[in-house]
Order: sequence, then structure tokens, then C-alpha cells
Amino acid sequence: MLGNPHKTRTIAGISATPLSGLGTVRWYRSGEQPDPAEISAADPETEQQRFDDAQAAAREELETERESTRERVGSEEAAVFDAHLQFLTDPQLTDPIEAAIADGAAAELAVDEAFGDAISQFEGMDGMMAERADDLRDIRDRLLRLLSGGERTDLTDLPEGTVLRAERLTPSDTAQLDPDTIAGFVTMTGGRTSHVSIFARSLGIPAIVGAGEELREVREATTVAIDADREVVVANPDAAVREQVTVGRDVTVQEERVETRDGTEIEVAANIGTAAELDGAVDQGADGVGLFRTEFLFLDRETPPSEDEQFESYVDALDAFPEGRVVVRTLDIGGDKPIPYLDLPEEENPFLGSRGIRRSLGADSELFETQLRALLRAAAAGEGTLSVMFPLVSTLDELTAALEAVDRVASDLDNEGIDYAKPELGVMIETPAAVMMAEEFAERVDFLSIGTNDLAQYVMAADRENEAVAELHDPQQPAVLRAINRAVEAAHAHDAWIGMCGEMAGDPELTELLVGLGLDELSMSAVTIPAVKANITEIERSTAVDRRDRALTKNTKSMVNETGNQ
Amino acid sequence: MLGNPHKTRTIAGISATPLSGLGTVRWYRSGEQPDPAEISAADPETEQQRFDDAQAAAREELETERESTRERVGSEEAAVFDAHLQFLTDPQLTDPIEAAIADGAAAELAVDEAFGDAISQFEGMDGMMAERADDLRDIRDRLLRLLSGGERTDLTDLPEGTVLRAERLTPSDTAQLDPDTIAGFVTMTGGRTSHVSIFARSLGIPAIVGAGEELREVREATTVAIDADREVVVANPDAAVREQVTVGRDVTVQEERVETRDGTEIEVAANIGTAAELDGAVDQGADGVGLFRTEFLFLDRETPPSEDEQFESYVDALDAFPEGRVVVRTLDIGGDKPIPYLDLPEEENPFLGSRGIRRSLGADSELFETQLRALLRAAAAGEGTLSVMFPLVSTLDELTAALEAVDRVASDLDNEGIDYAKPELGVMIETPAAVMMAEEFAERVDFLSIGTNDLAQYVMAADRENEAVAELHDPQQPAVLRAINRAVEAAHAHDAWIGMCGEMAGDPELTELLVGLGLDELSMSAVTIPAVKANITEIERSTAVDRRDRALTKNTKSMVNETGNQ
Repeated sequence: MLGNPHKTRTIAGISATPLSGLGTVRWYRSGEQPDPAEISAADPETEQQRFDDAQAAAREELETERESTRERVGSEEAAVFDAHLQFLTDPQLTDPIEAAIADGAAAELAVDEAFGDAISQFEGMDGMMAERADDLRDIRDRLLRLLSGGERTDLTDLPEGTVLRAERLTPSDTAQLDPDTIAGFVTMTGGRTSHVSIFARSLGIPAIVGAGEELREVREATTVAIDADREVVVANPDAAVREQVTVGRDVTVQEERVETRDGTEIEVAANIGTAAELDGAVDQGADGVGLFRTEFLFLDRETPPSEDEQFESYVDALDAFPEGRVVVRTLDIGGDKPIPYLDLPEEENPFLGSRGIRRSLGADSELFETQLRALLRAAAAGEGTLSVMFPLVSTLDELTAALEAVDRVASDLDNEGIDYAKPELGVMIETPAAVMMAEEFAERVDFLSIGTNDLAQYVMAADRENEAVAELHDPQQPAVLRAINRAVEAAHAHDAWIGMCGEMAGDPELTELLVGLGLDELSMSAVTIPAVKANITEIERSTAVDRRDRALTKNTKSMVNETGNQ
Repeated sequence: MLGNPHKTRTIAGISATPLSGLGTVRWYRSGEQPDPAEISAADPETEQQRFDDAQAAAREELETERESTRERVGSEEAAVFDAHLQFLTDPQLTDPIEAAIADGAAAELAVDEAFGDAISQFEGMDGMMAERADDLRDIRDRLLRLLSGGERTDLTDLPEGTVLRAERLTPSDTAQLDPDTIAGFVTMTGGRTSHVSIFARSLGIPAIVGAGEELREVREATTVAIDADREVVVANPDAAVREQVTVGRDVTVQEERVETRDGTEIEVAANIGTAAELDGAVDQGADGVGLFRTEFLFLDRETPPSEDEQFESYVDALDAFPEGRVVVRTLDIGGDKPIPYLDLPEEENPFLGSRGIRRSLGADSELFETQLRALLRAAAAGEGTLSVMFPLVSTLDELTAALEAVDRVASDLDNEGIDYAKPELGVMIETPAAVMMAEEFAERVDFLSIGTNDLAQYVMAADRENEAVAELHDPQQPAVLRAINRAVEAAHAHDAWIGMCGEMAGDPELTELLVGLGLDELSMSAVTIPAVKANITEIERSTAVDRRDRALTKNTKSMVNETGNQ
């Protein structure tokens, strides 16, 4: 008995995105898999061959999905497939599989047991470790499907207005969803930092995750509302709820620059990882690129990209925004990202280790110089305006050394008779030290850009990937807002412009607060640009400043109550 | 040919302590061990018994050394022996040892090879990982010595004025040294964060580490100077160097409270881990305890300490300083310390995880309540003044919840008719967020206490145990000093007193700067109290304020040049 199928039912979950939606709920149908324990084994040689084939096919699928995710979602999101590719050939998994097959097990059983052991090791751990259990489940299920000859579930072509319902969605599933036709999705498992949530945010899809078993009780094909503000799924919503969740959807893309009601222009730019994302940024009406994460030029390869290769990428970006600005962040790599040709140390606390400018001025100084050469050449060759910024700067010495490196490269290019131009130069504000030194930094550069993800993490001493302290890692904490406010004041006191390129910048609920804080530029995932641009045109500066003042002095508890609606 | 034995020779190294010294260099003689590969094996059963005996003897030694280190050096330092005890029975080491013995190897060879494999895995890693290779070497050498029936090298009774010279010193070696007779030590290996350096600082022994192979070339029994300011060892020093390194040694213990020349009283207190350290603190002239780290009451046991057990410890501390103040920090435990009866999560970045007040208000709330009951009862029963402070507070909500917990406990004790008193209440300032919220905190509590080790780590986003970023993790960085300055101003604006209990507080070279910053209390390892008290009486506040102003605005490079001498 499921009760009255037409009764309104409200199920609490976690909003993965700030977007609401309304549609028809449909179960996710993945192909049924036979029970691995019931499959009878052929001879070991045949079973080994079956495993090898499945592994090769999985590799091919993963590589394809990585590319399409990079184009459709983003480079950072695509990195999850790198992890999957690594696990796929990890001897800690393949050795026991091969041993079990040699002992007479069917490939399915061997896979199921080896992954089962590894999954149970990661389960029960927190944060990123728990995510790894999910990654292993995805790879296991992929191998089992391939062993049984099953096709991938196609989610690219769901009926318009579908609210997809699933126990969980893998990154491969989520990457296929079309934000233009799907009304949203709801899952029983998952948290705010799960892959599925990150993908939903990047694609701009309404989504409630972690809604639990109760989701099963909603009758198939019922109308459901996703209410991001209240963090609930509502089956058979009444008129009030329907209106609430549909208001403000389908924001028109605005190609022109926008200003507040009282005439303050705010630059709205896109965060990108590779040149492949430029089209999406242009399509969503970005005024330029506010953060070009250059790491992705360096990942998934055996040798670093040459000066010319980099030059091409930077010029592509500049040509995509002939009237705009492209802000390139120099290489920001540390112990948490595997790059085969760099000697990256293992560190106990990689977020507090040797990363960003620390490596560029040390072990990776040659790489840094090559990148600067490519950038200075691109500044002369590309159409738009190039700005270059340095990550994780925390002392004046580091900034001075970075600026000297630019001068050195310029004078080398001069001597070599190579065409170049000096770009705008800036500093990322992402450590508390940078906030404390912002005055001195702003005196010496053209602009500052606040990376809220890292800044909030260091200010609050709370790892953003650790669920146990997720509540603390909130850029709306007054302590973080005060740090941002201090940086803005320092920038403007020294005629530098200041932007923000962390996740906070793309949250449409916070646009007013950020305008109130005085940011000149906001850079975000391309998909949220239309909503943020629309918001800016509605904002009155004096109201925004009031909101800032309240937020800066607010006790966190009362703050949480206020931010639900804007 | 070692050249002229009477020639002055200067060898660069790393100052482990800010202390200089002069003495006669003597090689460290550890017993010679036979080559494990040349020992012929008895039958496996005998060899296994030999290993079991050596393991048991090692455990006994380690437990004894842990206790004596706790009393002579400090509780935090003694924790290294816990790690050794864990490794001693780690199946990743004992399994291959037992397998090799079963295969016919002598116990010596089995130990040597199993540890060799593990050591090579940790070698080449940075920071704490490299330290673990050293830990493993220590345990291996201990087991090999016990297998060959060798005695521990006795370093407790070195001739007065010895400068001990060694390739490296283990924690067990260092803990034996007597600061009253030894003139210092010099080692070829080691860095500023090595165990040996930490022990030297706690014991107050002049020491240069990492001086390299050149140290071998100094003729035995030569006079050598340890110059902490220049970070060098000088063999056959001239009169100028001799005077330089002997000035200011043998400071007299001052039992009275001290003030600056112009009459500002500064409280000088001791950091302690257990009641066993109280005598040392009293002997060195501490005015009280500025940091009682209560974790050590909770470590090395199967169940948490009872309310009464804790009560006794706190009363002991209060009775040791009848005229003074004892500042107790509530339990500060996180994923980096193993406690069997707590469910501590594994975390990717433990320093940014669930620690301190975060756990006390969450998973460990019962433990927290018991501790508060013991503290409130002790406040009424002990002679001195009790102050209680909360670690890792980063939001006003957390502080409010902690203060409410104190009220709740007080009202429970009231209802139960149990004698208690309300202690002074305070907050540790060790996250950038706490600095940003210091005004609001100071309004609500009696005092603030700055933990510079953590604060510098978070402000600079640099792990204090990671050598690669050690230069950044410096409390003299202007960014860190500005954070300290902001906290002091906030405290004084709201009539709260403010102290400092990080390592910075005990550095005699920085006393003037800290007085200039306006700190009311400094708390440190007991051994540095006499030097800091002596310094305070020499300080003129106006000069100190000038030094602060210079330090706050200084570019880091020029700063480093200035701080060598005071």
C-alpha cells in the first residue's frame, strides 16, 4: 500500500544546486545484471580473456566519457574519469582478480569479490575516502555490465520535463543529462560534495540528493517539484509550490555587459579549464574568462606541453573574447594531483603543502618560465586583453619573485626579437596571509582575484572535502566575509580591480551580497552566468551594501535562516 | 690528512634551539653491532623465540623511556615512543619477520630486511613521512642491539662541558642528555622539525643539526662553539666567537613576577601536559600554567579518565601555584592522534578536519561534559585561580555552545549539591576565523590565548610539519604578526587579557616583539622561562612598540636579516 497516489508528499533531501524545477518523475532504468555468484566459469584462460576484453572496453568508454564530459561539463569534472582509469589497472585490484580467475572463478565473480573487498575498506571513512568507494562501485558495475554484454544506459534523450529518479547516479550518467530538456533529478544517496552534485551544479540542473528510501514511495509518472530553497522534493505539489519552483527558470542569455539598477557595471566571466569550454562560455553570455585553470593543459600526458602548444591555447581563449578579458592562472599543482613528469611529494596535509606559486618559484621554475613565455607571446598575438595571476601567494617575497620572473622573461623575449606584450598582472587571494598582505599586493599589481573555496578552507581551518566540517566551510561565515571585505577595501585603496572566481561567485543567491561587498568582477561556471547577470540588473547598490553590513556582523545561526530566499 | 688541527673551522648547519654554547667535542659511541647477514641461524623455533624476547624487551625499554621522557622533557615529546610501540607490533613488519624466520633466517637478518623494506618506502618522502623512516631505523637498531645482547648507550653521565657529536641522535638518546652538564650537541643529519631538534628545544640544549659530513673532520676533543645566531659550529673558535657564544648563558631563575623597565608586568607561565611536569615549571620560576594540554590524560589508555581522576590532576596543578593562574585547555583531539576508545575518522587533511571544540560539541560531547564537571569542581577545591579555554573555535556559534555547556554543567552541579566554582573562561586564537571574530569573542569571555603554531599554519596555508614549506610557516611573517596584532587590539578593546602559548612565546629573541605587540602573558616550555623573564626586565616599552611597528610592515626578506641578533 503506497497510500493515496494523489496526495501531496514532501521528502527532505539536500539541494545539489540552487535551481528549482517541476516535471514528471521517471525511474532510472539501468540494465539488469545477473548475479555474479551464479555465473558458471569457463576455463581460466577464457575467463582471463573475458576480463581483459572487459577491461579494454571499459578503458575505451572511460576515455570517450572523459572527453565528452570535458566538453559538456568541464575539465575539473572530467578528472573523475582519470581516477577511474587509474583504478581500472591498479594491481591492488587486478592481482586478486587474476588470482581468482586462475583458481577457477568466473570473471564476474572475480571482479565482484576484488572490488567488494576494496569498497569495504573505503566505506565508513569520511569525505573523499567515501567518494572513492563510490568510484570503485562505478568501475565494478561497468566491468560487470561489459562482461554480460550490456549496453550503456542512454540518458541523453529523456522526454522533455523528466525528473529522473535513481538510487544513485554515476558521473557517467550525470554527464549525459541535457540541461535543456531535463527538469531535474532526485537521488536517494549522495551529499553536497558528491560527484553527482558537482556535475549537477556545473550543468545547471535542479537536483535533490540524499533524499533516502522514501523516494521509492512516489508513484511513477507523478508530477514532482524540486524546491532548492527548502531542500525538498514535493510529489503532487499544490499551486503555490508549483509557482514557487517555476519562477525565475529559463533566464534569457544576456550577451551584453550588465550593470546594477543604479549603474555599477559588474563584469561576469566564466571559469574554464580548456579551450574546449570557450564555446559554452560565449554561448552563455560570458563577458570574458575570469579563471583559466591551466592545470588541465598539463594533466593526462607524459611530458609537459610545449611553449607553442600553450601559446595556441591562450590565443584561442583571447580570440574567443575579442572585446573581453581572459584571466589566466599560472600552474597550480600540488601533491593532490598526479602528474607523471613532475616530482610531486606525498604530503600529510596536501592543502597546506607545496602548491601553486610555491612550486613555480621552486621545483617547477622552468615550467613556470615556459608558461610565462607562452603567455607574454599570446598577449601580443590574441585579440582580447590578457591578464595573468599567480596562485597561493602568501608573502610579498613570493609576489616580488613572480613579478621579477615576468620581467626576466620579457627581457629574454626582447633579446630574442620575439613579439610579446606585458599582460595585466594579478594575485589570487586564497590564503589568510594574502588577505593580511592585500594592501601591499594591490600596490604592486593591477588586480586581485578571490578564490573563495581555498580561502574559506584556510580561514575556517576546515577541509572543503571533509563532510564532518562542511558546515564550517561556508563562504558566508562572517569570518570569511570579513576577509573578503578586507581584500576589496585594500584593492580599491590602491586602484586595483578585484574579482572573485570561487564557487561563491556563481551562486545566484549571493549576487546581491557580492555586489554589496564591492566586487568588480564575478567569474563562475558558464551555466550560471545568465542567472547571475539577470540578478545584477535587479540590484540596488544601497540595498546590497545594507545586506553586506548585516552579513559581516551576523551570528552564523541567524545568517543561515536569512539566506534561504532572496 | 685533516689539516692543521688548531685551525679555526666553521661548519654551517641548522640551529635547533636559540641557545649557543662552548665545550669539548666528543664522539657518540654506540655499541658496535655485528652484520645481520653474517649471523648464522639456529632452528626457526629458537630464532622466533629470540625475536619474541627482543620484542618484549624493546617494549619494556620503550615504556620506561616514555615515562622518563614525559617527566624530563615533556608529554608531547614522549608521544614519539607511542609511535615506536605501535610499529613494534605492526603486522606489516612482524608478518614478514616471522615468515623469514620460518624460512630459516636468523632473527637479526629477518628484522634487518623487513625494516629495510619499510624504511625504503618512507625514504624520499617529505616531512613527517621522512621522520617515520627515522622512527623505523630507531626500532630496528633497538631490536638488533637487544638480539646481540647489547646495553643501551648511557648518555646521562657525560663529562661536564661535552659537545656531543653524532651522525644522528635518536629520541631515546636525546631524552637522556642533562641540560645542566652538557654544553650542547652537533649532528650530521636532522632538520628543524626532527625529533632531535624538538627534544633539544624542550630541554634547552644548544644544538646544531644537519651539519653534514664535514663534522667528521673536526679533531676529537677539540674546543667547539655552537653559535645559534649564525647557525654554525666553530672548531677552535677565537676569543670573539667564544665570548659571543657564552654571553647570556646561565640565566638565574627568577621566582618573582617580572615587569619591563617601565613597569608593565608580563605574566610568564609554563606549558605542561601532565601534573608530572609541574615541579619543573615551579623550579624554573613559572608564574603559573599558561597551557595545560589535557590530551595526555586521555592518551595511552583503554577508557577515558573518570571525572575524579581528572579532578585530581587539575587540583594538583592549582595547588602547585597557590598565587598563580592555571589555564586548562579542554580536550583537543583529532584524526592525527590515535585514541582507541574514540571513534576518530581518517581524514585527508587532519589539520583541517574535525578537531578540538568541533569534536567536543559533537561526537565527544559526553567527554566534554565530564571534563567540564571535573574542572568546575577543581576551581572550587584547588588553591590557584583556574582558567578554562576552548581550542579551535572558529565561529560565534561554537563559542556560544561551549559557554552554554559550562552553564549547564554548573546548574547540574548546583542541583546535585556538589561544590564548584565558575572558572575564568577563554578562547584559543588559532584559526584565521578566530582572528576575524576576535572582537565578538573578547566581548563574551575573560581572556584570549594565541596558539601561534596552528595560527601560522592556517594563515600561511603551510603545514608546520612539512619541510618543503617550513620557511613560510614562520610566526614572524608579517601576515601572522598582523593577525596577532588584530587579536591583541580586539582583546584590549573589550577588557579581556590576552596571552600566547605557541612556540613563539618561548623564543627569547622575540620577547621584545611580543611585549611590543601588547601580550599580557607568555606561556612556554619551562626551560626557557628564566631567559624570557630576564629579557623582560631589560625591555623598554617604547622600543618594543617601535620594533613591533617595523615588524608589521616589513618585507619578509629584510625581516630575516634583522632578527639574528637582538
